[in-house]
Amino acid sequence: MTFSARLSAAVREKKTPVLVGIDPRFNSIPECLRTGVCASDLKGVAGVFRTFSLRLLDVIAPHVACIKPQLAFFEAAGPYGMAALADVIDYARKLGLVVILDGKRNDIGSTAEGYAAAYLGENSAWKGDALTVSPYLGEDSVQPFVKVAEQNDAGIFILVKTSNPGGGMLQDLQAEGKTIYQHTADWVEKTAAAFAEAQGEKYGAVGAVVGATYPEQLAELRQRMPHAWLLVPGFGAQGGTVKDVAHAFDEDGLGAIINNSRGIIFAHARKDYAGKFTDAQWESAVETAVLEMKAQFEGFVR
Amino acid sequence: MTFSARLSAAVREKKTPVLVGIDPRFNSIPECLRTGVCASDLKGVAGVFRTFSLRLLDVIAPHVACIKPQLAFFEAAGPYGMAALADVIDYARKLGLVVILDGKRNDIGSTAEGYAAAYLGENSAWKGDALTVSPYLGEDSVQPFVKVAEQNDAGIFILVKTSNPGGGMLQDLQAEGKTIYQHTADWVEKTAAAFAEAQGEKYGAVGAVVGATYPEQLAELRQRMPHAWLLVPGFGAQGGTVKDVAHAFDEDGLGAIINNSRGIIFAHARKDYAGKFTDAQWESAVETAVLEMKAQFEGFVR
Repeated sequence: MTFSARLSAAVREKKTPVLVGIDPRFNSIPECLRTGVCASDLKGVAGVFRTFSLRLLDVIAPHVACIKPQLAFFEAAGPYGMAALADVIDYARKLGLVVILDGKRNDIGSTAEGYAAAYLGENSAWKGDALTVSPYLGEDSVQPFVKVAEQNDAGIFILVKTSNPGGGMLQDLQAEGKTIYQHTADWVEKTAAAFAEAQGEKYGAVGAVVGATYPEQLAELRQRMPHAWLLVPGFGAQGGTVKDVAHAFDEDGLGAIINNSRGIIFAHARKDYAGKFTDAQWESAVETAVLEMKAQFEGFVR
Repeated sequence: MTFSARLSAAVREKKTPVLVGIDPRFNSIPECLRTGVCASDLKGVAGVFRTFSLRLLDVIAPHVACIKPQLAFFEAAGPYGMAALADVIDYARKLGLVVILDGKRNDIGSTAEGYAAAYLGENSAWKGDALTVSPYLGEDSVQPFVKVAEQNDAGIFILVKTSNPGGGMLQDLQAEGKTIYQHTADWVEKTAAAFAEAQGEKYGAVGAVVGATYPEQLAELRQRMPHAWLLVPGFGAQGGTVKDVAHAFDEDGLGAIINNSRGIIFAHARKDYAGKFTDAQWESAVETAVLEMKAQFEGFVR
């Protein structure tokens, strides 16, 4: 089954666009899981990441369709961290979750093939359903990812309009009558539309990252890329609300997945949950947070 | 010692701007090192990468100042590959080589800290002297790398004008009177100049990647970023020549390092060396290639 069909089916089954970001920041992980482990002991840290992430998956898998492990944090724990990431991906896929690897990789064509093979290829140690990709090096740097995605029924999400305050430095510049992010979006749409047509589906395997923190641009980009799944970061801790992302969806409530990382995985430390959960009850906090976010999007997916 | 001072000293000591790219593509590695290992056996592949890279370092370390391991290829061999990368970095630094990790990483600020810690931080498993960074997410996504570099006497190289044919898709667009790559370059220069002033040096710890395949832009960018080291890919196999990169240097022959990957590390397979080296003589081929490239830049470093 194609990536787009798999994602659609998973979102429909779980009836929610909620995407949970797996960002294991060591100092934010519940203390009871970190006892006796120093931040400088990378093997110990990686073990904590593994335990935390696997237990997290058990809690969220019944409720959501997809997860987004953030490679940066696993990489910060060195080769042990990357081995833990492999276990997390394997377990998530066994649980039926769609796994979107957030690596924002990119390089010139012949090297991009290496990244594509590493995360989406048939011999991948970290085989994800999709990978995020940065567009600064242009079309020929993204094509190898598209090709490997096509060969492996995987997907890619290109950074278009990111959620951070400084994203506009390059993305918002006007060139030849449109912004840089619109240039990127038009390339995504062209590629996604070709995919969608070839596969006889509404959406292609090439999607776009568009931040919840820029609601107007999100609505505009939904229109501009009718064949692209939107991966929307910036909900929750970064300030994005349900209202901000409402225009990211199509009439069936599909076409967008809304990421929340800290607000769910570190829910035990949320200020609005103060006094509700002890450190040891972190899994209850996670489940509460994921169900609350699901409730906010109740009725979206039809 | 700061990154810039360390790089200057190393280039002066070896009297050459040659930078050797360590890109272990499995199928290009001499066959005698691959005997009995299948491409799908990632543990075996990582072992081949380790052996090949360590022997390579022994050959090149007496002749050059710096190396640039390409993370994509090590990542393609999974966690085993990333463990091999750690060994390669450790050994290179023991040999006194300046290690520039080519990862082209980037993310929003709080996540960029994870990448910076992973490759430049005090607990890094892959502690490099510098890391390449992509600018698409803007200033606040690059600052965490700058900060960690500053704290660890490390450096970063921002992608400005890349060597691939399609790099112009976004980089060459004109916005507010200058191209996107010039916008990026101006940010690099501003940051590099502040660094250089604070450290009392000619160059700062923030450099730029500028391809040898665009000689006019390379000359222009040398003028535009007087305080930035230039990392110049695209020499050799990609078509760049000594004449193309001649304007990348300052009057002392410093300020630029010229990368060659395939042309050196896979010299045994070079067409112009046909019949000269057997597969088993690959180390002689590497040494010949590195000395020939050095000879082309004879007299540059004063």
